[in-house]
Amino acid sequence: MALTLYHFNNSVCSQKVRLALAEKGPEWDERFVDLVKLEQYESDYVQLNPKGVVPTLVHDGQVVIESTLICEYLDDTFPNPSLKPAHPSGCAAMRVWTKAVDEGIHEGVVALSFSAMFRERMKGMTDEQRTRQFHNIGDPVRRDRDRAVFEQGVESSYVFNAIAVYETTFSKLEKVLVDGRDWIMGDQYTLAEINFAPYVARLEYMGLLEIWIENRPKVSAWWNRIKARLAYQRGVSDRLTTSDIEPMQRFGGAIHLRVAELRQDYLREFVITD
Amino acid sequence: MALTLYHFNNSVCSQKVRLALAEKGPEWDERFVDLVKLEQYESDYVQLNPKGVVPTLVHDGQVVIESTLICEYLDDTFPNPSLKPAHPSGCAAMRVWTKAVDEGIHEGVVALSFSAMFRERMKGMTDEQRTRQFHNIGDPVRRDRDRAVFEQGVESSYVFNAIAVYETTFSKLEKVLVDGRDWIMGDQYTLAEINFAPYVARLEYMGLLEIWIENRPKVSAWWNRIKARLAYQRGVSDRLTTSDIEPMQRFGGAIHLRVAELRQDYLREFVITD
Repeated sequence: MALTLYHFNNSVCSQKVRLALAEKGPEWDERFVDLVKLEQYESDYVQLNPKGVVPTLVHDGQVVIESTLICEYLDDTFPNPSLKPAHPSGCAAMRVWTKAVDEGIHEGVVALSFSAMFRERMKGMTDEQRTRQFHNIGDPVRRDRDRAVFEQGVESSYVFNAIAVYETTFSKLEKVLVDGRDWIMGDQYTLAEINFAPYVARLEYMGLLEIWIENRPKVSAWWNRIKARLAYQRGVSDRLTTSDIEPMQRFGGAIHLRVAELRQDYLREFVITD
Repeated sequence: MALTLYHFNNSVCSQKVRLALAEKGPEWDERFVDLVKLEQYESDYVQLNPKGVVPTLVHDGQVVIESTLICEYLDDTFPNPSLKPAHPSGCAAMRVWTKAVDEGIHEGVVALSFSAMFRERMKGMTDEQRTRQFHNIGDPVRRDRDRAVFEQGVESSYVFNAIAVYETTFSKLEKVLVDGRDWIMGDQYTLAEINFAPYVARLEYMGLLEIWIENRPKVSAWWNRIKARLAYQRGVSDRLTTSDIEPMQRFGGAIHLRVAELRQDYLREFVITD
């Protein structure tokens, strides 16, 4: 049985899949796809993954793409321990969380990360490299986003939307955990945690997490429980070196004040007045 | 066993769930949520569905939201006929399609529909109603989209992105069907069809579908096979009256020429030059 993951160490979607693999425990091979060198757009890789994103799982010749679907696939294929509620209605409730990650938080983390460190990196690119990055895989949505965040940084509406979606999610999470449960779905650690954890980790590495969790004790405790898992260390933290962490801290620090202000703007405009 | 669907006749997401119900065949009750009267934002309904969208399924007291997840729930709960491939890798491949609907095509259809008929409807609203619509459920992403499409109509980047995502999807679909298969996953009619069909139907009702399928014989034949299903008639076409269909035709007709031109722009900029 051959199980190969194409991935990048400091990619949130790769972290999701490594978290699932580490909980399940099968042996797997790895192929690195270097996002800094734009290897995700090379034709061999796009053949495997038409969107030109990491990760991609290849299992006995079957290609599985989309990190959320890879995690579901791993849970179906390696049943122990189960990472989904047993009942279909619990499963649907869990997927509301994984879907929210895919349909808002992922865009959010890309905008925040881009507005901080990737923006600096792009300033050092040649025009040709930058055009290639903006023009990725015929997708005008990603082009518009990348261009807006490159030009406007933290003032872009994409960053504001990122702040809104993190606020909504952490607010909902605090309410869910208030009954004393350990995990989003209750006693069971599930794909709801695995899908969201890399996005919380990224905020923490950027020094931004406290903006959302300093007054949310249940979320803070939940986050500490996640970080204490061996699978978290193997899938996320052990994979990051100083050269990954230092830029996240430095560039995150540079936008911290403005992100906190924008969060207050969001609360005033959308939450308190409702 | 009580099965109740909160829905709206001419809502793409409600159509998805009605398609799945019609294939499966259980008895169900209905509650109408009138999107024209903005009933989806009334507090009783938001209690059930925090995003303020239709549909919502209530099954023996369990609330299931998000049309894609409701369809998966129905497939798990009423196993015959199965609407998912048996093998997990087939399941993951099918979900790449349902995910693409949720992460691009849905936004696309909202932008296109909005740029045509809802825009006219909003022009007749009071300022207060319009503010309420833009300010929906604390979500700046939906506010930005609704405002841009209201102000710029078919010239908004949201409509351009809609055209791009339909192009990408139909292009991919034609290639998948070229081996002579009846359905996206092969011999089995699955949630890939059910999730996408309402978005194809909307284009057809707006008179825009031929822009994408006139030169795609495999997609055309596939679409005719879907429409021939009794479940399609029960879930989609039988539910629409002249007062639903006439505005879609009229407003769709008004943007047809420009949509076709914008598609050519997209092809020139993103596809042919690649």
